Amino acid sequence: MPSWIAEMVRLRGDGNDFATSVSPGVGGRRLYGGLIAAQALAAAAATVDPARLPQSLHAYYIKGGKAGVDVEFTVERTRDGRSFNTRRVTAVQNGAAIFEMLASFHRPEATTDWQRTEPPRLTLADATVATRMPERWADHFDVRIAPGAPLDWPNQPFWFRTREPIEDDPVLRACALTFISDLGLVSAARPPGQEMPGPGGAASLDHALWLLRPSDPHHWHFYDSVALSHSDARGLARGSIQTEDGTLIASVAQESLWRM
Amino acid sequence: MPSWIAEMVRLRGDGNDFATSVSPGVGGRRLYGGLIAAQALAAAAATVDPARLPQSLHAYYIKGGKAGVDVEFTVERTRDGRSFNTRRVTAVQNGAAIFEMLASFHRPEATTDWQRTEPPRLTLADATVATRMPERWADHFDVRIAPGAPLDWPNQPFWFRTREPIEDDPVLRACALTFISDLGLVSAARPPGQEMPGPGGAASLDHALWLLRPSDPHHWHFYDSVALSHSDARGLARGSIQTEDGTLIASVAQESLWRM
Repeated sequence: MPSWIAEMVRLRGDGNDFATSVSPGVGGRRLYGGLIAAQALAAAAATVDPARLPQSLHAYYIKGGKAGVDVEFTVERTRDGRSFNTRRVTAVQNGAAIFEMLASFHRPEATTDWQRTEPPRLTLADATVATRMPERWADHFDVRIAPGAPLDWPNQPFWFRTREPIEDDPVLRACALTFISDLGLVSAARPPGQEMPGPGGAASLDHALWLLRPSDPHHWHFYDSVALSHSDARGLARGSIQTEDGTLIASVAQESLWRM
Repeated sequence: MPSWIAEMVRLRGDGNDFATSVSPGVGGRRLYGGLIAAQALAAAAATVDPARLPQSLHAYYIKGGKAGVDVEFTVERTRDGRSFNTRRVTAVQNGAAIFEMLASFHRPEATTDWQRTEPPRLTLADATVATRMPERWADHFDVRIAPGAPLDWPNQPFWFRTREPIEDDPVLRACALTFISDLGLVSAARPPGQEMPGPGGAASLDHALWLLRPSDPHHWHFYDSVALSHSDARGLARGSIQTEDGTLIASVAQESLWRM
């Protein structure tokens, strides 16, 4: 049986044109950015040799997407090189672009392996409180935060893993990481001491994700994020995702819009 | 008289199609990524209301550009919204895409102003050694590094300012910052202790730049960068640019290709 992420990023179509009717909403209305990004990555990957792995993506959330409305994805095959494939994906709803992404795929190369070592601010053993994804349709992750932290969706370090195994497929695993990578950075980007705004008061503006090393999202991962700046109604945060043994899996950066 | 950056990003054309013959090379052969990005930003800005300021850009270096060959820039006006304008720019040489960028422009909004405060690792007073941009055509910056550091282009914290004033034009100032933002991150992304490779051994793969607050590049700025990860022939580094009074002007992230 396909995993939940395989179901969510399954697209109709072929060639360079794809579409999905899987567009559940956040609060029943707005599309969730992590899902659009994962679907766009799946659309791009459908045009690339599976031996090339998802390397990174850079995207803009152009216009709020509506829940329950089909999304069309158009892929442009910008370049197929000897080592890299570059793609552009545009997501359209009702004739208007809502999301645009550039993504790159890379033929794996064995080289020096080095990473900046930053021990998790919160160990898995200390993350004793289970919390939930805010929407039932998205609730496919075990999430744990520190005791004493607010029980709403974490704007704080958290540990996560998928409840069920994901297929041994680098694209689907990258899609699962992309899906969850859009959580936490918006709330992380608020100025210290400032409350979260009401519904619609904050939204992702862009998203950059570097997939640094393969990993199995059914294992525990630590997602840490930190605010860098807030001004001009914009907040910038960056994040990192590492495994329990400290291996750096992904780096993330995102600017969000704040209307208080 | 127009500033050097105004000359470098001056483009022929109108509508959505622009071109430039200003394509000097690094080592006489390869196009310099910071210049292509600055020219692409100028092309995007030419299609946007000047009251909207450059907010951020995300780009891929798709294929090595050749020095001395005209570059054509095609702008796609993805969206003109109430607060944001989104653009895509593709740079083509001899019929092949060499660079692709998404960029966003934003109507300024007055909100909470907060930033993570990180005092410079190197004070301007301690940056006593003047160094030079590697190419004469690019040598429009005063650059200072710490004494005892290698005198080649800094793979280390450095202070910079433009030698001559830049017009009081947010786009040109953003172009000057974009120009210099592509320096330092490639060499920063090498594993500690590893030598820089020979010519052509390392190259920018992508580039993300968030322009957080306006500034005058004729004043001193501190550019700090740090390596995050190196594997799969890819190095990831992030950087930040701040003024002498500590104001955070820009945040940068870049992955580079390393073939030793």
